[in-house]
Amino acid sequence: MQKFESYLTTHLPEAPSFHPTFNEALKAMLLAGGKRFRPQLLLAVVDAYEPMICESAYPVAMALEMLHTYSLIHDDLPVMDDADLRRGEPTLHKRYDEVTAVLVGDALNTHAFYMIATAPLHNDVKVALIKELSYSGGIGGMVLGQAIDCYFEGEKLAAEQIDFLHEYKTGRLIAASLKMGAIIAGLDEKEQEELFKFGLDLGLLFQIQDDIIDVTQSSCEAGKTTGNDEDKNSYINHFGLEGSLKRADNLAEKIKEQMANFDLHLKDKLEPILNQYLNRHKG
Amino acid sequence: MQKFESYLTTHLPEAPSFHPTFNEALKAMLLAGGKRFRPQLLLAVVDAYEPMICESAYPVAMALEMLHTYSLIHDDLPVMDDADLRRGEPTLHKRYDEVTAVLVGDALNTHAFYMIATAPLHNDVKVALIKELSYSGGIGGMVLGQAIDCYFEGEKLAAEQIDFLHEYKTGRLIAASLKMGAIIAGLDEKEQEELFKFGLDLGLLFQIQDDIIDVTQSSCEAGKTTGNDEDKNSYINHFGLEGSLKRADNLAEKIKEQMANFDLHLKDKLEPILNQYLNRHKG
Repeated sequence: MQKFESYLTTHLPEAPSFHPTFNEALKAMLLAGGKRFRPQLLLAVVDAYEPMICESAYPVAMALEMLHTYSLIHDDLPVMDDADLRRGEPTLHKRYDEVTAVLVGDALNTHAFYMIATAPLHNDVKVALIKELSYSGGIGGMVLGQAIDCYFEGEKLAAEQIDFLHEYKTGRLIAASLKMGAIIAGLDEKEQEELFKFGLDLGLLFQIQDDIIDVTQSSCEAGKTTGNDEDKNSYINHFGLEGSLKRADNLAEKIKEQMANFDLHLKDKLEPILNQYLNRHKG
Repeated sequence: MQKFESYLTTHLPEAPSFHPTFNEALKAMLLAGGKRFRPQLLLAVVDAYEPMICESAYPVAMALEMLHTYSLIHDDLPVMDDADLRRGEPTLHKRYDEVTAVLVGDALNTHAFYMIATAPLHNDVKVALIKELSYSGGIGGMVLGQAIDCYFEGEKLAAEQIDFLHEYKTGRLIAASLKMGAIIAGLDEKEQEELFKFGLDLGLLFQIQDDIIDVTQSSCEAGKTTGNDEDKNSYINHFGLEGSLKRADNLAEKIKEQMANFDLHLKDKLEPILNQYLNRHKG
């Protein structure tokens, strides 16, 4: 991922402007690190099937990171989670102000599609990628999930509604990352959908782990504001720490089993990445 | 435009959700009317050169309206313009809450690209459209302009900086609307750029007219919160009402002259639309 990281730092968005801080703010959260989990997933799939075009997929991986980053910036806003810390640094509205955080989020959302539209890939591929990202990152995924999360704060949802909420809020963009890798690699629709479904499990595990980290780690350890989920429909609030740990274990097992059935190319590329995350909830 | 309006009302975004108000909120500002100025411009260009494919351009016209609408929703937020009224109705954060306004804005921004990605047009055309919209609607236009507008509130910019600000905030999306029409109609790059440049003048006129309306019309007449620009780098604050009216007159003249040189097809389609707007500042 060092090569992707270096691509990212040399291809950051740059507005043509006399505004003294906008460009710095635009880049700040992208440069603040993060796991680059979604880019890793996409690039692993491309690398498994079409290693020669892996670098052509960098702008798409970066688009995923931009969309994810904008969502963090907006989720951290005072009207949403009101968080002070993200990726080990002050949140954007703390570092600048709320107006900047809203607009930088908007700009990163929009610019994600510019990154794909200008990637060195076939136009058929780019349109398929944009269709997927604009749905799973929007009303068919992330934004809807966040809306449900906020709306039902302080109100207890049913178990299947919690899964729906987190599938949309977190799972679908992670699933889309794998599917978009499959689109670039030229896999057929059935294979794309299999990877998408696998990604939904992975996304759910990821969310449960985040919920566990929210109660087991300090803000300093986690690099983001934790202890913030009291009124949320988190897994912890529904199933307790024990129940959530068990769910995470079960999901991690299921994911390992599914991975064992992947063809060897894919297994080779995905396993080393996922092994870093599957036990994340165990600290 | 009745046919487009009916297309819009039957193709509104719909999230697959148990959230009781999200879908209603998603549609509210799109249904609240508005002039549909950007869709009109795009469709006029397509209609002038390729009338047979005009309906294929509806999703793209709708994407423009979505992007514009999300920008109004975010601009009206309490941290930005703190406006109560828009398109003759309460602003979205007044009708629902700020969280809903942020998220509906985000969703419309993202979904604009879904509309284009799924339009019945050639993939080469769709990629060119997405490239244009994601730049002129983002860091190469609208979002940057809004960031400059907010940052320099209460601080007086130089005349050329004011033009830059408004060219980006308003002009570039209007210019992009014409250019995107040209892309769909298959005009060459030179013709696309000519229409884009013409659109910049038109956008500037539009902005000066809005600034004039802000001081000459009540909120009720204008259908949006007016009298709100005191600390802004508006044309009124820089050139006064007299100076702004003169600038608007000069621009309207320039636009009429340019239009006189358009080829007949285009002139026939654009003139009736623009005639409704060129004297808007005269009340």
